[in-house]
Amino acid sequence: MNKVRIAIIGLGRIGKIHFENMHFHIPEVEVKAVSDPHTRIETYGIPYLSLEEIMKHPEIDAVAICSPTNTHADYIEMAAKAGKHIFCEKPHDLDLARVLQSLQIVEECGVKFMLGFNRRFDPNFLRIRSLVEQGKVGDPLILKITSRDPGPPPVEYIKSSGGLFLDMAIHDFDMARYIMQKEVKEVYSKSAVFVDPAIGEAGDIDTAVTTLTFEDGSMAVIDNCRKAVYGYDQRLEVFGSAGMAKVENNFPDNHSLSDGSGVHSALPLNFFMERYTTSYLNETRMFVKALVEGVEVPASGVDGLQAMKIALAAKKSITENRPVAISEIK
Amino acid sequence: MNKVRIAIIGLGRIGKIHFENMHFHIPEVEVKAVSDPHTRIETYGIPYLSLEEIMKHPEIDAVAICSPTNTHADYIEMAAKAGKHIFCEKPHDLDLARVLQSLQIVEECGVKFMLGFNRRFDPNFLRIRSLVEQGKVGDPLILKITSRDPGPPPVEYIKSSGGLFLDMAIHDFDMARYIMQKEVKEVYSKSAVFVDPAIGEAGDIDTAVTTLTFEDGSMAVIDNCRKAVYGYDQRLEVFGSAGMAKVENNFPDNHSLSDGSGVHSALPLNFFMERYTTSYLNETRMFVKALVEGVEVPASGVDGLQAMKIALAAKKSITENRPVAISEIK
Amino acid sequence: MNKVRIAIIGLGRIGKIHFENMHFHIPEVEVKAVSDPHTRIETYGIPYLSLEEIMKHPEIDAVAICSPTNTHADYIEMAAKAGKHIFCEKPHDLDLARVLQSLQIVEECGVKFMLGFNRRFDPNFLRIRSLVEQGKVGDPLILKITSRDPGPPPVEYIKSSGGLFLDMAIHDFDMARYIMQKEVKEVYSKSAVFVDPAIGEAGDIDTAVTTLTFEDGSMAVIDNCRKAVYGYDQRLEVFGSAGMAKVENNFPDNHSLSDGSGVHSALPLNFFMERYTTSYLNETRMFVKALVEGVEVPASGVDGLQAMKIALAAKKSITENRPVAISEIK
Amino acid sequence: MNKVRIAIIGLGRIGKIHFENMHFHIPEVEVKAVSDPHTRIETYGIPYLSLEEIMKHPEIDAVAICSPTNTHADYIEMAAKAGKHIFCEKPHDLDLARVLQSLQIVEECGVKFMLGFNRRFDPNFLRIRSLVEQGKVGDPLILKITSRDPGPPPVEYIKSSGGLFLDMAIHDFDMARYIMQKEVKEVYSKSAVFVDPAIGEAGDIDTAVTTLTFEDGSMAVIDNCRKAVYGYDQRLEVFGSAGMAKVENNFPDNHSLSDGSGVHSALPLNFFMERYTTSYLNETRMFVKALVEGVEVPASGVDGLQAMKIALAAKKSITENRPVAISEIK
Repeated sequence: MNKVRIAIIGLGRIGKIHFENMHFHIPEVEVKAVSDPHTRIETYGIPYLSLEEIMKHPEIDAVAICSPTNTHADYIEMAAKAGKHIFCEKPHDLDLARVLQSLQIVEECGVKFMLGFNRRFDPNFLRIRSLVEQGKVGDPLILKITSRDPGPPPVEYIKSSGGLFLDMAIHDFDMARYIMQKEVKEVYSKSAVFVDPAIGEAGDIDTAVTTLTFEDGSMAVIDNCRKAVYGYDQRLEVFGSAGMAKVENNFPDNHSLSDGSGVHSALPLNFFMERYTTSYLNETRMFVKALVEGVEVPASGVDGLQAMKIALAAKKSITENRPVAISEIK
Repeated sequence: MNKVRIAIIGLGRIGKIHFENMHFHIPEVEVKAVSDPHTRIETYGIPYLSLEEIMKHPEIDAVAICSPTNTHADYIEMAAKAGKHIFCEKPHDLDLARVLQSLQIVEECGVKFMLGFNRRFDPNFLRIRSLVEQGKVGDPLILKITSRDPGPPPVEYIKSSGGLFLDMAIHDFDMARYIMQKEVKEVYSKSAVFVDPAIGEAGDIDTAVTTLTFEDGSMAVIDNCRKAVYGYDQRLEVFGSAGMAKVENNFPDNHSLSDGSGVHSALPLNFFMERYTTSYLNETRMFVKALVEGVEVPASGVDGLQAMKIALAAKKSITENRPVAISEIK
Repeated sequence: MNKVRIAIIGLGRIGKIHFENMHFHIPEVEVKAVSDPHTRIETYGIPYLSLEEIMKHPEIDAVAICSPTNTHADYIEMAAKAGKHIFCEKPHDLDLARVLQSLQIVEECGVKFMLGFNRRFDPNFLRIRSLVEQGKVGDPLILKITSRDPGPPPVEYIKSSGGLFLDMAIHDFDMARYIMQKEVKEVYSKSAVFVDPAIGEAGDIDTAVTTLTFEDGSMAVIDNCRKAVYGYDQRLEVFGSAGMAKVENNFPDNHSLSDGSGVHSALPLNFFMERYTTSYLNETRMFVKALVEGVEVPASGVDGLQAMKIALAAKKSITENRPVAISEIK
Repeated sequence: MNKVRIAIIGLGRIGKIHFENMHFHIPEVEVKAVSDPHTRIETYGIPYLSLEEIMKHPEIDAVAICSPTNTHADYIEMAAKAGKHIFCEKPHDLDLARVLQSLQIVEECGVKFMLGFNRRFDPNFLRIRSLVEQGKVGDPLILKITSRDPGPPPVEYIKSSGGLFLDMAIHDFDMARYIMQKEVKEVYSKSAVFVDPAIGEAGDIDTAVTTLTFEDGSMAVIDNCRKAVYGYDQRLEVFGSAGMAKVENNFPDNHSLSDGSGVHSALPLNFFMERYTTSYLNETRMFVKALVEGVEVPASGVDGLQAMKIALAAKKSITENRPVAISEIK
């Protein structure tokens, strides 16, 4: 396979990013078709096809599923059965059984499957992963992740998203596994509703501190909040037996202004579209590379599954106010 | 009271710091006597007296108790009964009942009592406290404290110190109350022995992550380790509804060297003697100010008691692997 | 004019950047043709035409001249006479008379002309300019620019480039005018050959410190070196009556690694291709905007002329070891 | 000589600092006497003596001359003839001939003489010097010093101080020699009056950019201003063939506050009393060490002389608007 022929299903905010990255920036990709029942974007001549047409199309090697979460599992199964490789946006699905089921079909059909944990491909986090792999911090003992959004999504979104742990912190749970390269054994979360009472009324929380314990006793601490007034805050620090590596938040420029009242600098890059521009592009490159070179995808279905189990354990932990073992999640 | 006449009891590492600060740097103090059964330091002509002589001395207004922890409660009671104001190094005592008992006597005798939570007087942490008080972060929601030592103390010390929570993290527990200005309701700790198996054999832990929940649901996360190979690490961050304030670690200079391999800068100030030089001096100034001006001491016996309860709850939490309410500690 | 139809002349390193930016990233541009006598790059179906064909082409509104410097003035005149708007890479020409001549023709023909001072469009420098315009530093008194390359170009290049002042520092001379928004009155340069004796043998210098004096007595200091072993170094600071604004160098990530030997972070972005990616894109956007909206170009022929005069004065200053007035350069 | 017996002459702002450092912080010093015709400070029982009494006193080994500049040369000669070692505040004298004369007498009398270039002993600058000595930057090629005061002194002071170059920039001229460890060959200064017209009327300037050329062609650039609204600004950077080392300005704490308008941090330490506290103490320690151990003083009379020549050359340079060779200053 020299050039990967891809169809993009779903052209919302993320689908559009993937379209532009694939069409303009990755020479090894040919976007053959797009599909979306409602949204129309500029596709530079690339045709809109129906889902059925895409699945039957003999010159489409892979699909990128960027449609609403509740369609993911169905489309994954359709694509797998049609012999298409699959890139799927996170989350895979909100129902654990459904995730397992569709992964089973993916496996049976022998197609590649990659889940869109884009943050794995951010230059900052890649550097930390690389330092850990090179042994620069020795044995990683404590991982700390700060992950705060600039503002909450609409309450309607929260109602269907699975809530803070499944739609937001799941990135951090994946990051914890990715950096530590170990499995989580136990989860303890403490949470609150501080940002908006309506979020609490919708059955979710907006602020949480989660402690993960890994198999070997090492730990991760993740703090999340739906609203940081100073903007999107994405930091990470890993402390180990031989050193400590960390990355700070990202800013649009590095100016400082000193005046009579102090030293002042810029607000961070506003949200994931600006902050993770590079990671989205790198992510797609890695998917394409996996197809072209026949290597492993760098974020698998099992990665999605494990992150989901951590999220479900976190939910259970706040309900029961006790540490919850991953083995309890089935 | 214009000039406070103080006797220093115990001239070990910390006692010597207090002696020099009081003798050389605080004009409102006259050091009248020192006492130590074994150690002799240069006292610039100030006499060594016995404990009994100090307690009976009519021209001594206050004592600074810097002797071993197991003598604190006895000396506090002696001094209180002798009508001397008291500055006492932390920890007050390892036994909760004994702490309560001696505080009871202090109260009955009507003397002032200040506990040596020196970090409250560090310029960095003072600034954070001040920003919180000015409302610059709004309602404080999540506090994060990093507190790592450059290396573990001797195992013999650990055996008698009460362990990581009572001798090391207790500073952080106090800091959490100091910054948040609320009481802790519940504690959850996760811990491990990663630094030295001998610490585990002595019944203690050397690495811990502790989540505190305050009365109003806000949270603090504290991570401790007995050994950071890169040196003493003391950082703090408070996230609130209107902003986030943080202080970084302290360094001996702010140089950077850029060469063919990267940008390099200094290791942090090595340990508490170097890191908290200013805070020890400020602390004594505040004690003296409380005596001279008749105002409240800025770190009371109750502050010590509350920090101790958090430490005991943390110990219980790791034994039972569950969140422990402060109200369970009696 | 809704969509600007552009031909790109010259497809070397910079020409390729402009091609990709215009073709993929700026919806208001249609690249109609490219031209290069030797180089062939992937043009996604856009035809290669001869210079003559481009100049005669009725559907080409503008040209981007990215060919060797010694062709610039000729092509500028050809394009102007053909009624094409012009974007020209710097330097305009190494001969002052030739620059004046071609600008005269541009003016007579009434086409727009923009010179490729791409650094004006870097987010860091844009921020500084904006802070100055907002009055945040008050009256700007002292500007400091650090501009060091990671390594020298081949000596052959230097022989035809006009040397350090005309090929490298000219960006900084332009930046000085851009930030200060005043004209330079006098120049004093001190220089040396420290990097490579062959550069000296070729009649050039590789290290220089230049002081510019503006009409109102305010000053700029620029230090240049052909080789910084730690990589490309591009910093700027402006000090004024009401404050000081500065930007630091740019790095590929913001990680730091603390280990037993210190704190370590990344080398800077390697050279102008990586460092000024965004500025090249912004630059083209501004050119296109000037055409579409009929507004002024943000880097004019006069801007190029003035920077060139400063460079020539700097050369004269090192030869004669004295401050040289811009009015001496004719 | 085990304990150095010192008399302090002059108890103004700086004399008081030296008194307290010597009396309280340096065990190897015994302050035997102080002298000041007008000022009375708390001396903790140390007697006030007349100048004559001090010079005749058999138990005084050394004097610290902190009196007004116009008395320095006289007192140096008196002390040298009386066989006392000498620490003298900068500047030595405003008249070059007088400096040479008194140094001649110092040499004839065989006493040690140290000039108060305290900044040499600042931890930041010491680190840079050490990095240069260790070869970490290779051959130092360009030194950059930023030195700006928070506000100008009274115009009356400027009239008698010798002006910006002799009272303020002289520290930077000394620093340039100290870091580069080479002699300056030529000076070019450009200056202006931007802060206060009264300074210009008094015949001085308040803003200057000075280029120093060293014997081997390497360069230093120093920018000075009498007023930085954001506070005292003291930075330094040395660029060399193998790397670049720099130190940033010093701040009272390292907090940052992120809120809806940006990231904010503290103003710098206000002025030399706060900024150079440690350097004053280190300086005195080095003087005492030179006496006790019989080693060289780390800032000699010749160091003072050379810095003064640079300052005089800078003055001549602005008057004549040309580079001035140090050899012209006699």
